[in-house]
Amino acid sequence: MKQNKIIRPSLILDKQKCIVNISRMKTKADKNKVKFRPHFKTHQSAIVGSWFKEIGVSSITVSSVEMAKYFACNGWNDITIAFPLNVLEMDEINKLSTKVSLNVLIDNIETLSVLKQKVENRLGVYIKIDTGYGRAGIKSEDIEEIECLINEIKNCNSLLFHGFLTHAGHTYHTNSKNEIKNIFFETKTKMTALKKYFSKNGDIEISVGDTPSCSIVDDFSGIDEIRPGNFVFYDVMQKYLGSCGYEDIAVALACPVVAKYKSRNEVLIYGGGVHLSKEFILMPDGNKLFGEIVKFDKNSWKKPIENIYLSSLSQEHGIIKANPEFIEAIKIGDLIGVLPVHSCLTANLMKDFYILK
Amino acid sequence: MKQNKIIRPSLILDKQKCIVNISRMKTKADKNKVKFRPHFKTHQSAIVGSWFKEIGVSSITVSSVEMAKYFACNGWNDITIAFPLNVLEMDEINKLSTKVSLNVLIDNIETLSVLKQKVENRLGVYIKIDTGYGRAGIKSEDIEEIECLINEIKNCNSLLFHGFLTHAGHTYHTNSKNEIKNIFFETKTKMTALKKYFSKNGDIEISVGDTPSCSIVDDFSGIDEIRPGNFVFYDVMQKYLGSCGYEDIAVALACPVVAKYKSRNEVLIYGGGVHLSKEFILMPDGNKLFGEIVKFDKNSWKKPIENIYLSSLSQEHGIIKANPEFIEAIKIGDLIGVLPVHSCLTANLMKDFYILK
Repeated sequence: MKQNKIIRPSLILDKQKCIVNISRMKTKADKNKVKFRPHFKTHQSAIVGSWFKEIGVSSITVSSVEMAKYFACNGWNDITIAFPLNVLEMDEINKLSTKVSLNVLIDNIETLSVLKQKVENRLGVYIKIDTGYGRAGIKSEDIEEIECLINEIKNCNSLLFHGFLTHAGHTYHTNSKNEIKNIFFETKTKMTALKKYFSKNGDIEISVGDTPSCSIVDDFSGIDEIRPGNFVFYDVMQKYLGSCGYEDIAVALACPVVAKYKSRNEVLIYGGGVHLSKEFILMPDGNKLFGEIVKFDKNSWKKPIENIYLSSLSQEHGIIKANPEFIEAIKIGDLIGVLPVHSCLTANLMKDFYILK
Repeated sequence: MKQNKIIRPSLILDKQKCIVNISRMKTKADKNKVKFRPHFKTHQSAIVGSWFKEIGVSSITVSSVEMAKYFACNGWNDITIAFPLNVLEMDEINKLSTKVSLNVLIDNIETLSVLKQKVENRLGVYIKIDTGYGRAGIKSEDIEEIECLINEIKNCNSLLFHGFLTHAGHTYHTNSKNEIKNIFFETKTKMTALKKYFSKNGDIEISVGDTPSCSIVDDFSGIDEIRPGNFVFYDVMQKYLGSCGYEDIAVALACPVVAKYKSRNEVLIYGGGVHLSKEFILMPDGNKLFGEIVKFDKNSWKKPIENIYLSSLSQEHGIIKANPEFIEAIKIGDLIGVLPVHSCLTANLMKDFYILK
């Protein structure tokens, strides 16, 4: 990696790793004959988006109306806003839906009533289902409420009922691949049961989407669409969950080394919460891990250095818990890499990348 | 508050509260005859900066070269970059120091050697001292190392040795006002001892600066300069530390209500980690608190609603742990306010404010 132009914390994107991540998921989706509608909230980048387009992806997911507008401006015209509809943004949604095919999420009758009053153009609608995560959505067992929503959607000409959508985010709270597989199986069971129950309402799609499930599970039978997002970059959290290997993590934050404290075996880097976010992994010994440490080489970066890690963060400061060998080898003014714990939040903070080709 | 233009998460700044916070700290500094060099990393805003200027503040602190450049462009010409010098930014520092009076921080000889080789214009230098926080700085008892640095600074014509600077950030890990007072006393004792020991080197300034100390301590005798930053807005963390009351918190994130889940007494708002940051307070019962909840009124917002709080955050989602009364009273599409846990990180993410006058 050419380092001479980097003088402050900068997000480095390894294009080759990223392309491999994208292709692997696309191939898996194709093999399973499910629609691949990747979530673009992780990269939020027209350039990275173009790498998906090059291999034939044409439908995307975003998490906000603003993001939908950004990608619509960059040539994407089939977009699902995977966040329960915010009725205050109906004017913007109406504007955007004159230009692109837009899908929204509904999980309650109050929102649906406002949507029906205000919708001006054709909108696709998914009912958001909660299969156990407990964040958003109607519980999959609330059949009556779901039926009521379907009927209310179907009696509005501007709304096209697509099916059921869920995000099994509780895969992020697991300790093994088996737990993730079990959650996927439970989610699939609940979703396909709903599809069957409501099959009298015509074609019903099932859309699922967390990166841990989509990475670990091989068989998507019964599913119509997957919407993973984080897999495009992966991160240390996904490595800990078993979704990826270190070699799949496609982003690293390059941070200048500013001080070394031999007496406490610590190194201070320029790189803090405003660059990486404050997301951490709580380790078995009770310490917090804010990132793993890598050294850059000619083309990219090496595997994380064992037994050292980013142990604390403030606004601009990062502290590496190191050892005498590391401290001896590193120099003030060197650039050291940090693999982020949560690449979505890091990319959101950094906005831009240096792309390694 | 006029709410009709706010359709997505927006940071609301109550100017009156902010002005009171600024004036209170300025008055305290004046009364103690210490220089007031507020840290502008919290607001990062030329407009908020102008409110300081109006009451006679002319020197500021920032945490990055980029921030120094921004405020230099906005008329500030006496700036301390309170982050250990990053040698990779020397070209930018040399450019900036042709225009404004700049102070930098040094805590090791390696950095100082590079600085001496590369410095082109007059720069003020503080030696960063660690009085117990353990993040950056030379330990106050490392007299030999400090002496060596002073000598090396003094034999360079472009460098002007100003004195010792510390940030007693361990006040953030306390459980009572008394603990904060004790840390301040210990810090002051260590810093004044250094000043006395090195008094043969001419005038030596002592600069201290955390918001908890500056808010709680009344007597700054022995100190030459204070650099608090967070006090301009305060936040829930400062309220928990005892630095402020709820009535002093000058920012709230306005968030649209998107769903209500009666069965689990929770409310989903549009407002997540990309708006507030993932900073939380760990409560005695083991739950995490990501923000307190307020209702807006005609002019500003009321006190936090008791027994409900923001209990989890993902990228765009926020979950309020609520009760039946709250859920009954609130409607989809209402705007609810969140007092942030850490206003510096929230303001950094949001970039802009709606200012209530």
